[in-house]
Amino acid sequence: MINMQSKNNLVSWQMNCPVSIPENAEYVTLAHGEGGRLSRKLIQERIVHLLNNEYLVALNDSAQLPSVNGPLALTTDSFVVSPLFFPGGDIGSLAVFGTVNDLAVSGAKPLWLTLSLIIEEGFPLAILDRILKSIARAAQETGIKVVAGDTKVVPRGAADGLFINTAGVGELITPIPPGPATLQVDDELIISGPIGRHGIAVLAAREELALEPLPLSDCGSLIRPVERLRNELGDQVRCLRDATRGGVAAVLHEWAEASKLTLSINERSIPVSPEVRGVCELLGLDPLHMANEGTMVIAVKQGSGAAAVEALQSLSETADARLIGTVNSQGIAPVTIRRTLGSEQPLDDPLGSPLPRIC
Amino acid sequence: MINMQSKNNLVSWQMNCPVSIPENAEYVTLAHGEGGRLSRKLIQERIVHLLNNEYLVALNDSAQLPSVNGPLALTTDSFVVSPLFFPGGDIGSLAVFGTVNDLAVSGAKPLWLTLSLIIEEGFPLAILDRILKSIARAAQETGIKVVAGDTKVVPRGAADGLFINTAGVGELITPIPPGPATLQVDDELIISGPIGRHGIAVLAAREELALEPLPLSDCGSLIRPVERLRNELGDQVRCLRDATRGGVAAVLHEWAEASKLTLSINERSIPVSPEVRGVCELLGLDPLHMANEGTMVIAVKQGSGAAAVEALQSLSETADARLIGTVNSQGIAPVTIRRTLGSEQPLDDPLGSPLPRIC
Repeated sequence: MINMQSKNNLVSWQMNCPVSIPENAEYVTLAHGEGGRLSRKLIQERIVHLLNNEYLVALNDSAQLPSVNGPLALTTDSFVVSPLFFPGGDIGSLAVFGTVNDLAVSGAKPLWLTLSLIIEEGFPLAILDRILKSIARAAQETGIKVVAGDTKVVPRGAADGLFINTAGVGELITPIPPGPATLQVDDELIISGPIGRHGIAVLAAREELALEPLPLSDCGSLIRPVERLRNELGDQVRCLRDATRGGVAAVLHEWAEASKLTLSINERSIPVSPEVRGVCELLGLDPLHMANEGTMVIAVKQGSGAAAVEALQSLSETADARLIGTVNSQGIAPVTIRRTLGSEQPLDDPLGSPLPRIC
Repeated sequence: MINMQSKNNLVSWQMNCPVSIPENAEYVTLAHGEGGRLSRKLIQERIVHLLNNEYLVALNDSAQLPSVNGPLALTTDSFVVSPLFFPGGDIGSLAVFGTVNDLAVSGAKPLWLTLSLIIEEGFPLAILDRILKSIARAAQETGIKVVAGDTKVVPRGAADGLFINTAGVGELITPIPPGPATLQVDDELIISGPIGRHGIAVLAAREELALEPLPLSDCGSLIRPVERLRNELGDQVRCLRDATRGGVAAVLHEWAEASKLTLSINERSIPVSPEVRGVCELLGLDPLHMANEGTMVIAVKQGSGAAAVEALQSLSETADARLIGTVNSQGIAPVTIRRTLGSEQPLDDPLGSPLPRIC
């Protein structure tokens, strides 16, 4: 385990920033966050025109939205990733995809997003613009509309550059996956792609590791893969979960706890990119504990595993999906792994994380 | 204008804390925010049991909520108030009432809330518990259910104690106030209670002013007053707005901009408590620029002002409601005020705020 804290006392948001800050740059001031004229200017000129949609332009206390036929899904996440830019994404795309994916894996069609910024005084407006553009791009890609927002500015030293919160509303689509409490013995476990890419990408960016090729984050949308599974497998899907903080290991432990069964996976079946494997071996990290931001674990009923893998492999973003294990009756450990060398071992539940601030 | 920034470099969250921290106290660690076992323990043992409801207990990626008949309202706010505790409230009650009020003044019945915490490493769990209890109390009082949440921990120095984000979903109730763009000449303007109380309470707490009596924040729910206005006045209500950052002046300027009319108020009619008046005179602040957190501005059609004031005065929380002005055809200034001494003057639009971090 590496101690990452020392770096955080640096101005970590300047790292990996793809924008060069000119001499006469403009910076965020406290007044930008205080609800007066400068706040309105910031919101109107830099945010609303980028995220433009019929609900946001009204800028009322709340967005007024049409009624939804079905039941709703509601979720929220705050993003404090450091550094703000990493190979394959940034805090902006992460904030959109993270919340969109939470809705998608719950069985919902993502509809609306709120966007709340906490900005440190002195943050360059050029970097903020870059992140807002990334938010706009991710929102457009996923078809979600940013309909409400908030901007706060705190004095220098009271926050580390920029924190983002998003909350998402979606419409639940039948059949809604019933969740991990319904898991049964012989259910099959699937991973939608190579694991650990987001955690290793952030680690590489933060530690400025000179890796070639650079490990890219998997930061991206799971809407299409979830839709494909719904269309192809219907109610054969028990549960889905994007394996963010705590990685695949944390998801499996939560499911084992919810189902009172033992989940067993096979190390040989788990896709890991050469870049991720290399960094993990070098630093003694387990890819199963590393965060993902566009990769999910799926459990399907016995006999549906191959069809689920085939459905996922037909999409570019989940072309490397694999069957990784099965659900068994409760054994001595909640989660077990058959290591490449053949022995079956308990898989640790991460107590915390090897790496803080990865999302 | 007072420079408040110097204080923010102190550990401002310890100020005014009503909890004494014992020698063997427990503190928030980075691992509490990393999605593993400690995160789940924090959420299960300290949050879920306090905010207990049928939607939150599932702890899925998203809350699954029943369908809503009517159109929806969606809003979000981040709270970075310093200090965390002030006379009349704390960051927890503020985070609930702030979002509930944004829904209420939009014409919605508040239904569900998300709660996202960004906590600085080393924050005492005893203080966190106190704030969570305050959140639970405010949620119970307003009948809103906290159905989804998130917890992030950042290293020491990367945030100032605790930031909270809430997003709220409500059901819009007919008649929905059509908003400030529909204002007409001779519409009447009302304030629901004495102004500037929240801003002055936070100022007093931050500067440790030895005032007697202590100015109390108006931090509280506007659900009942909005319901009362809806029931008594129906579609006579044009628009409502809780006068938070920027105070009453910012609301009037936004409405003047939206309607292209001039809003004129009468200083003599505006209720100001003796405590707020005293501090404002002492420090050269204008109560019209100071933040409120449970006080709203209302515009009603010509002839309905007296009925609106009477409806509000029948409730304890808005017993001091007053008619404060009227809407006029566009004059030289968007907002004017007849001062107590008789002269009519333009009322400034606050560029920023005299006081950062009041919510």
